[in-house]
Amino acid sequence: MPSRYLSFRCSVPWLILLLQILFLTHSFLGFPGVGDVYSPSNFYPEFQDVNHMVIFGFGFFLMVLRRYGFSSTGFNFLLIVLGVQCSVLVEDLSVFLRIQQSEVGMKSLAKAVVSMTAVVISTGAVLGKANPVQLIMMTLVEIIIFYVSRCINRTFLQVPEQLSLMHVHLFGAYFGLAVTSRFPEPAPGLDKNRSSPKSDLFSMLGTVFVWVFWPSFNSLLADSKKEAVLNTYLALAVSAVAAFMLSALTSKDGKFRMTHIHSAVLAGGVTVSYTAPSIQHPWIAMILGLLGSVITILGSHCLQRCFNPALKLQDTSGVHFTFGLPAVLGAVAAVVLCVVQNGIDRQWNNLSSLGYLVFVDLGAFCQTISSALITGLITGLILNTKLLKAVHVSKYFDDQFYWEFPHLSVGF
Amino acid sequence: MPSRYLSFRCSVPWLILLLQILFLTHSFLGFPGVGDVYSPSNFYPEFQDVNHMVIFGFGFFLMVLRRYGFSSTGFNFLLIVLGVQCSVLVEDLSVFLRIQQSEVGMKSLAKAVVSMTAVVISTGAVLGKANPVQLIMMTLVEIIIFYVSRCINRTFLQVPEQLSLMHVHLFGAYFGLAVTSRFPEPAPGLDKNRSSPKSDLFSMLGTVFVWVFWPSFNSLLADSKKEAVLNTYLALAVSAVAAFMLSALTSKDGKFRMTHIHSAVLAGGVTVSYTAPSIQHPWIAMILGLLGSVITILGSHCLQRCFNPALKLQDTSGVHFTFGLPAVLGAVAAVVLCVVQNGIDRQWNNLSSLGYLVFVDLGAFCQTISSALITGLITGLILNTKLLKAVHVSKYFDDQFYWEFPHLSVGF
Amino acid sequence: MPSRYLSFRCSVPWLILLLQILFLTHSFLGFPGVGDVYSPSNFYPEFQDVNHMVIFGFGFFLMVLRRYGFSSTGFNFLLIVLGVQCSVLVEDLSVFLRIQQSEVGMKSLAKAVVSMTAVVISTGAVLGKANPVQLIMMTLVEIIIFYVSRCINRTFLQVPEQLSLMHVHLFGAYFGLAVTSRFPEPAPGLDKNRSSPKSDLFSMLGTVFVWVFWPSFNSLLADSKKEAVLNTYLALAVSAVAAFMLSALTSKDGKFRMTHIHSAVLAGGVTVSYTAPSIQHPWIAMILGLLGSVITILGSHCLQRCFNPALKLQDTSGVHFTFGLPAVLGAVAAVVLCVVQNGIDRQWNNLSSLGYLVFVDLGAFCQTISSALITGLITGLILNTKLLKAVHVSKYFDDQFYWEFPHLSVGF
Repeated sequence: MPSRYLSFRCSVPWLILLLQILFLTHSFLGFPGVGDVYSPSNFYPEFQDVNHMVIFGFGFFLMVLRRYGFSSTGFNFLLIVLGVQCSVLVEDLSVFLRIQQSEVGMKSLAKAVVSMTAVVISTGAVLGKANPVQLIMMTLVEIIIFYVSRCINRTFLQVPEQLSLMHVHLFGAYFGLAVTSRFPEPAPGLDKNRSSPKSDLFSMLGTVFVWVFWPSFNSLLADSKKEAVLNTYLALAVSAVAAFMLSALTSKDGKFRMTHIHSAVLAGGVTVSYTAPSIQHPWIAMILGLLGSVITILGSHCLQRCFNPALKLQDTSGVHFTFGLPAVLGAVAAVVLCVVQNGIDRQWNNLSSLGYLVFVDLGAFCQTISSALITGLITGLILNTKLLKAVHVSKYFDDQFYWEFPHLSVGF
Repeated sequence: MPSRYLSFRCSVPWLILLLQILFLTHSFLGFPGVGDVYSPSNFYPEFQDVNHMVIFGFGFFLMVLRRYGFSSTGFNFLLIVLGVQCSVLVEDLSVFLRIQQSEVGMKSLAKAVVSMTAVVISTGAVLGKANPVQLIMMTLVEIIIFYVSRCINRTFLQVPEQLSLMHVHLFGAYFGLAVTSRFPEPAPGLDKNRSSPKSDLFSMLGTVFVWVFWPSFNSLLADSKKEAVLNTYLALAVSAVAAFMLSALTSKDGKFRMTHIHSAVLAGGVTVSYTAPSIQHPWIAMILGLLGSVITILGSHCLQRCFNPALKLQDTSGVHFTFGLPAVLGAVAAVVLCVVQNGIDRQWNNLSSLGYLVFVDLGAFCQTISSALITGLITGLILNTKLLKAVHVSKYFDDQFYWEFPHLSVGF
Repeated sequence: MPSRYLSFRCSVPWLILLLQILFLTHSFLGFPGVGDVYSPSNFYPEFQDVNHMVIFGFGFFLMVLRRYGFSSTGFNFLLIVLGVQCSVLVEDLSVFLRIQQSEVGMKSLAKAVVSMTAVVISTGAVLGKANPVQLIMMTLVEIIIFYVSRCINRTFLQVPEQLSLMHVHLFGAYFGLAVTSRFPEPAPGLDKNRSSPKSDLFSMLGTVFVWVFWPSFNSLLADSKKEAVLNTYLALAVSAVAAFMLSALTSKDGKFRMTHIHSAVLAGGVTVSYTAPSIQHPWIAMILGLLGSVITILGSHCLQRCFNPALKLQDTSGVHFTFGLPAVLGAVAAVVLCVVQNGIDRQWNNLSSLGYLVFVDLGAFCQTISSALITGLITGLILNTKLLKAVHVSKYFDDQFYWEFPHLSVGF
């Protein structure tokens, strides 16, 4: 059925065009009540850091497959520029519907870029398996659902805006996992879903970018920036140290494994993302970074051996243990730290108010993860209907299915 | 005639030395009237962005040839560090001659780095065909002519300094095209002037850098920075979306083509470069980004099929459609926007003053493009005289002609 | 004796764990007298630049060996995250012992990252020869000794803190050279200690990063930032120009040599590191940049032909001429400039006070270089005792000895 695989391609540009016309119309018409789009802002350098991290850092971070370099960086780029516009549209719409206060200009853009991280993480789970139409559909659905999920957290559970945005790793990872579970599994002996030393090196290049810019990511919208920056830096440093330690401990004859390093050096940043602005002692951030790294590397072993085969999951770039597990740990840690701090402040009186705090935090966590899983499953089912003409498993993980290769010798 | 190709090399270091001694003498003697070189400035982070973009971003952006990686990045580096010093010298000289006000220190350096973009773009047109002596001569001539062209715009047409600097893409592209038209064409069946997947990946790396830092470039010297940043970001986003859409539409069986992506994602930034600080509605910037991308991709098809073969042009990295056409579009758009805005403000009375505005803007545009073309042609003729010992066409596009390869296996 | 080479690996994770527990304990217990760790700071963008330069820039700058890419970037990363924590611990300890004033938070971290540059430079000298245990031991010793050396300079010679930190290149280069002199030499015909075009390209990528961020490095802790930035930029520009010139002059038939470019473009930044904030005329910085480049390229020829073979040194990535010689030149230039400036200010009266200034500067220089050489030699001897199970020369320069290669084809 080659026609089936070829015909989908013709729909890609029209889908993109349709979306872009929608975004242009939105921008042209505007919405009443949305404020001055050119409001001043003073966080341009940090915004640039985050923008650079999401487009460049994650683009190359995802380059883990030997024959999927063009698509990893290219599609990541496409999804972000589409998703950022979509995110701004959703936010403006909600201002118009009086769901939230107007926040515009650079800040609205910064929130859009941060929430795009969820999509980037989900993309990592379906890397090489979804075609561009599926990826774009997934981006739109995910951006909207994530926005709704944040609205619920904000409205019903009174979670502050910047904290609710930090559920981005949790949401992205579990949404991506649920989506990927509905994709057919590739043949077991496939060679294309491995990495090559060259792709590992490019991925390392991206990882270092993400690592370096993570403090900017965690502090971009935080109230107490200096705490956020310092705690994130320390957590990242400890988790990088722990990544090397655990990689040598868990691998055969004490060698380091590059995939461990890629995922575990970032674990600290994910783990402290909720608590970075509020932690009052550096050692707490360091412990969280250490635990994040431990859970990532142990998780990578357990998940790849037991959990993924049992559920027939194929998590291409390991987003479950890179972003999912550390985010769960971070959410739990946020609850514990919040209880302990409030408990000490109030000398463990007024326990019902403490219980309420726990209820709110756990509620936001459960709501986020369950809406990610449920909507992810539904999205996965929709994406694999015949309408969207999924790629055949034999065409997985291959740049040449999506990109022209005019080069004489295609050997990389 | 191997001696002819070898002997030119001996002149490279002496030419560089001569220039460096000139710059040192200028710096040592100074010019009366030039102010305090260490005047304070508050745009260091943006300056770093632009510096990074020009040296790193464009260096790797130009790495489109399979065997020309060292020269693409290396010569780009050399030309920038020479050109920046030359540009500062020219500016100081004009202060001394009372042609312009004194602007020194960081700001003078920033203007030098911005105007070096013209040279970098021209280098893209002669990429692989010019030897270092020719490149250095071209750099010097181009920097001086571009400065003179800006002076004319500023003095006779009252174009503000920061706007006249934004003609940099227009000037660079057409100067480069005129120069390259005087170089002999390479043999048609040549393999070396193609890209390889690896060089495409490095070029993508550079492109993302240029894309991310473009808002800093457009806002560096602008008066209303927040408008410039936001409009540029939106134009870039839309042009990136349109690049993917049009690449899939225009290529065979709906695949994406990497060279389209490289050139068209940047088109939005070039198109709004004149108008980014003055656009008052985001949708205008978005439309300009879209049009920029359209003109780039359509241009790349028309130019490569009809225009370039007819004129026997060989525009190695496609600067005509990457920078030239979007810059023309941007200049036209600037005129239209200026007329519309002033027309609305004055309720379409006082049409003679509107006509004057159009005359000024079109005059600056025509003056820039014609001086670029004429001086480019003359420069191209001079560069290909026997004196400068042009490279034989069989040695085009080859690192090994300029760089030592001490490696045992030169297979990349 | 394969067991000897394998058994050392088991000690790596435990050593790292031990260190991390120590750092955590330090952070948990704190030290009385150490101030508020979250004190505000206003140099986050510059700190990010330096952080990026040290982790990313130097990581890829060191990727000069064809089969050592993973280790170059990976171990550089590990050493920096360990060393930064160690450096903060040493500083806090010295505050507790009342050796210095409390300086905490971001500034303490910035000083730690800057002083880690010494370790990175030393790593370049033993690149490919030291195993991770040896590298970690070297890092710890070097951080402590460098701190002690700075304390001596500060306490006995009244050298300001930020100036004493700028001895980082001098200390790093000569410490590394002394350490590497105690390692056994690899077999002469070895292929693995060469570069490949691909590794040269990645190294160029890192070099450009280091070059672009060097002004941030020199100005991070300086009092007069704008002078430091501008002087460093000019020195770097001139040394880049001179690097190309001298490379073409000194190599066979006028070709450029990539290793010359790598080392000499940075020479200007190293040379002006002491004097960048205090130079009052740009031409002095430019002359220093030129001299730095000259001494680097001449040094690279002399050292590699005469000095290194005579002393049986093998300086893998050429830190002696890249960082050592320009730093010596910079230190001498600092003395000369200080004398000339003070001499002119006081009209060459009060020569005894001038003599005192020379004594202080030369004293700090001699103290730093001699402590680097002596402690480096001792460290080198300790590192090559049987206890630390040095790598056999046949396993030098090879990623596969330290990293798992799960890829089917290991050909890079």
